[in-house]
Amino acid sequence: MTDITGAVLLGSRDLTGDATFLAVDPATGAALEPAFTEAGPAEVAQAAALAASAFPLYRATTPEARAAFLDAIAANIEALGDTLIARAAEETGLPIARITGERGRTTGQLRLFASWVRAGGADEPRLDSALPARTPLPRADLRLRHIGLGPVAVFGASNFPLAFSVAGGDTASALAAGCPVIVKGHPAHPGTSELVGRAIRAAVLAAGLPEGVFSLVTGTSHELGSALVADPRIKAVGFTGSRAGGLALCRIAANRPEPIPVFAEMSSINPVFLLPAALDARAEALATGFVGSLTMGAGQFCTNPGLVIALSGPALDRFIAAASPLVASAPAATMLTPGIAGAYAKGVVTLESQADVTELAHGAEGGPNSCRPALFVTEAAAFLREPVLSHEVFGASSLVIRCADADEMAAVAGALEGQLTATLHLEAGDHALAARLLPVLEDKAGRILANGWPTGVEVCHAMVHGGPFPATSDPRSTSVGTLAIRRFLRPVCYQDLPEALLPAVVRAENPLGLPRLVDGALQPAGEARS
Amino acid sequence: MTDITGAVLLGSRDLTGDATFLAVDPATGAALEPAFTEAGPAEVAQAAALAASAFPLYRATTPEARAAFLDAIAANIEALGDTLIARAAEETGLPIARITGERGRTTGQLRLFASWVRAGGADEPRLDSALPARTPLPRADLRLRHIGLGPVAVFGASNFPLAFSVAGGDTASALAAGCPVIVKGHPAHPGTSELVGRAIRAAVLAAGLPEGVFSLVTGTSHELGSALVADPRIKAVGFTGSRAGGLALCRIAANRPEPIPVFAEMSSINPVFLLPAALDARAEALATGFVGSLTMGAGQFCTNPGLVIALSGPALDRFIAAASPLVASAPAATMLTPGIAGAYAKGVVTLESQADVTELAHGAEGGPNSCRPALFVTEAAAFLREPVLSHEVFGASSLVIRCADADEMAAVAGALEGQLTATLHLEAGDHALAARLLPVLEDKAGRILANGWPTGVEVCHAMVHGGPFPATSDPRSTSVGTLAIRRFLRPVCYQDLPEALLPAVVRAENPLGLPRLVDGALQPAGEARS
Repeated sequence: MTDITGAVLLGSRDLTGDATFLAVDPATGAALEPAFTEAGPAEVAQAAALAASAFPLYRATTPEARAAFLDAIAANIEALGDTLIARAAEETGLPIARITGERGRTTGQLRLFASWVRAGGADEPRLDSALPARTPLPRADLRLRHIGLGPVAVFGASNFPLAFSVAGGDTASALAAGCPVIVKGHPAHPGTSELVGRAIRAAVLAAGLPEGVFSLVTGTSHELGSALVADPRIKAVGFTGSRAGGLALCRIAANRPEPIPVFAEMSSINPVFLLPAALDARAEALATGFVGSLTMGAGQFCTNPGLVIALSGPALDRFIAAASPLVASAPAATMLTPGIAGAYAKGVVTLESQADVTELAHGAEGGPNSCRPALFVTEAAAFLREPVLSHEVFGASSLVIRCADADEMAAVAGALEGQLTATLHLEAGDHALAARLLPVLEDKAGRILANGWPTGVEVCHAMVHGGPFPATSDPRSTSVGTLAIRRFLRPVCYQDLPEALLPAVVRAENPLGLPRLVDGALQPAGEARS
Repeated sequence: MTDITGAVLLGSRDLTGDATFLAVDPATGAALEPAFTEAGPAEVAQAAALAASAFPLYRATTPEARAAFLDAIAANIEALGDTLIARAAEETGLPIARITGERGRTTGQLRLFASWVRAGGADEPRLDSALPARTPLPRADLRLRHIGLGPVAVFGASNFPLAFSVAGGDTASALAAGCPVIVKGHPAHPGTSELVGRAIRAAVLAAGLPEGVFSLVTGTSHELGSALVADPRIKAVGFTGSRAGGLALCRIAANRPEPIPVFAEMSSINPVFLLPAALDARAEALATGFVGSLTMGAGQFCTNPGLVIALSGPALDRFIAAASPLVASAPAATMLTPGIAGAYAKGVVTLESQADVTELAHGAEGGPNSCRPALFVTEAAAFLREPVLSHEVFGASSLVIRCADADEMAAVAGALEGQLTATLHLEAGDHALAARLLPVLEDKAGRILANGWPTGVEVCHAMVHGGPFPATSDPRSTSVGTLAIRRFLRPVCYQDLPEALLPAVVRAENPLGLPRLVDGALQPAGEARS
């Protein structure tokens, strides 16, 4: 069994210091043992030096070696067994079943990236043949592959202590890309972070990789994260968290002597459009589905449905009549941290105090740091006038927007900021209106759903968990799914290099058997260049 | 024949104003007619409004429609005939043959992007099938495609009046991605810019596309470029130019309320390593090739070989003995602008004044704004000590670095900043040393050449014209070749959307016949999803 010691994990070395902090059980407010060493700029510098020295060796690993390493991390996380589940539940207030499911998602994600690396998804090789007889000038022989960018800083998120934390999607995609990772562990779940960090470290050492491939620095100061992003050896940043936090990191990264990319997933209210025929056909079922999505996990999802848009009328009245008592009777679930619970309560008070907003339902009081679900309604005109109604309230609060007609619904869609998701509930009779809204929503959101709920993000090849600002700081990528690997790769071209000196992935005989783009045509796996 | 009027091209409208500027023939210093209207923030705002309104329609065009549009631009540029060639030569001082070749590269590039768009290179569709029976949770049906980011600002470069200017690589890749383009024309070749701008406009109108797909704003003020990057409707920036200029744009972009990506290609000295066996075998031939690459186009290439690294000894002495008279006798070619000529002269003086640098050769004086090629030599220890020796001198100046041994050569490689290219001249006997240098150079440069010269950038699928900072502001991309299109695309995912509402590229039956990634496996062009 792996122990939690409270150490900072610098490569293979445990570091303990005098400055410490404790985790808190948000369900009781009680402090949890042991004390965790506060990492700061000095530890960042050591971790960055280790990562920089590990990078040349790690990025040169074969796809198979990197994939086996990712698989080993997944197995090591599973081997932590109930120790991990119990600690994560204690530190986050999340139910055992949810944590267990999240563990499956996390290990599945590592294994999906392993399979994607084996399939050539990191290298994406391209070969253009020499054309010595071309006029007016011959063409050289050109080969392209992708390599890791360099050491990557990953900021663990509070709301997914496994899937968006130490061994979460950012870490998995960066390691898959051949980049060493330094995780800034979230101080709300330091024990969970240490357990997972030790699982990664064990895989690093068992694979004979250099120790600097992974370090974990956890602490409570802003200085820690700032030092990490500012370190010249860090070449990219993955972050999931608040808009203010993400933008602060973007600014640090942009003002370095060498600017680096920050992939920050920040803020989304995830509009849900209930189109007329669907609303008419199943207002009550929609209300049940909606409240389930809204209140799941105390609403602490980036994809929580914070906005419901529909036409005024009897069908919307039925939806509201069905949803309101469900919200009022929803249990008050414990939120992740006192800070998050406080911000949620404040966000709800702000909505309540708006002149044009009516409270429809408010859940019962609960224990310490709990989330009372809340449902509000307003008119489209008020929403279009008042920017505060578009602000994310992180937790189980949602706002219904009554629209006078389809034009007003389209105006609301057009006024939205960038989103992770946009959802349409529709029937065949709604297709014309959906077709009108879709082009607008495509420019606003990374993922468009029909007849589902945005909470629940599949880890696969076609997923986009991203979107225009402020949903993320860079809409050209995703933080979930195999496409996420591209964030941490850069292309390198080889011109007329002798075969013997070329990396295996671009050699003519294709010794690794990867699929490649040869003279502009996709060549399936296993084929040599003719 | 197309006339040059001096107008700003705002969509389909010509705008003329009171504030004007004149182009200059750098070979004579003479001003060239006509006067060009100074574009400024007011024109930027109009162009951006047109681009924003064109975007939804333009990004929704089919791959075939977009490809045909790109082909039409190429044909329209060719139809400008000698008018374009003559004006470009007059405004830049570049020889007719060079301009003619550059026109072929420019039209070839447009046509390559057309073929790439037809082949699905913009959409990159991915489909993951629904798994309704999966436990513990079913999987939804997920489809992904890429769409344009939004209006793109392109800054024309001075040194390629066609290939990196109004219809250059940035414009071609942005248009191919489905993004409207606003070009900030370089004031050194405004007539060339207008001619090409009119060729693009004619293609926009002939294709029935919205006029805002393309605008051209040319002017001499910094305010113009700043306003363009700051405009909230602009979603990405392509730039080729100086390090100071590129970084200034990066800062504006990063400090917008909504930060946007800037793809700036800025600064590179393109080290050339002459490995011992190759140098010994062909010192004189290498000298001839080197001086040809160095002095071509007055050295005004981003990939000009500004650094030659070799081991001290008789072979290097032979190389220097052969190269020096070739540099001394190289003609003094006219540079693009008085500003560039002045900066070149200043850079050469800086090198001459370094204590540890010896001048080997200096070309003869020429006419106004001409470039006297220059060759210097220093020791590796001095290069490693003195940062100024790594600064780019834009023009035909190069510095030979004598290394005591292979370790010192590796140290020089390791001390380099990010580069567009790194070149190795090698024989079989050099492979061991090359294998030692390659991993270092891969982390420094976007393209690695063997036994060639870095000037000359093929436009193809496997090209990388990019590299780590300060070669570019984002090493994850290229500004030449089909991979450049990814800079201007973002992924969008559709979850459980009815077939009838899905974009054609991701429909099950694959009506456009593009290759797609289906459940993680590449499916060739033309296949439906089973």
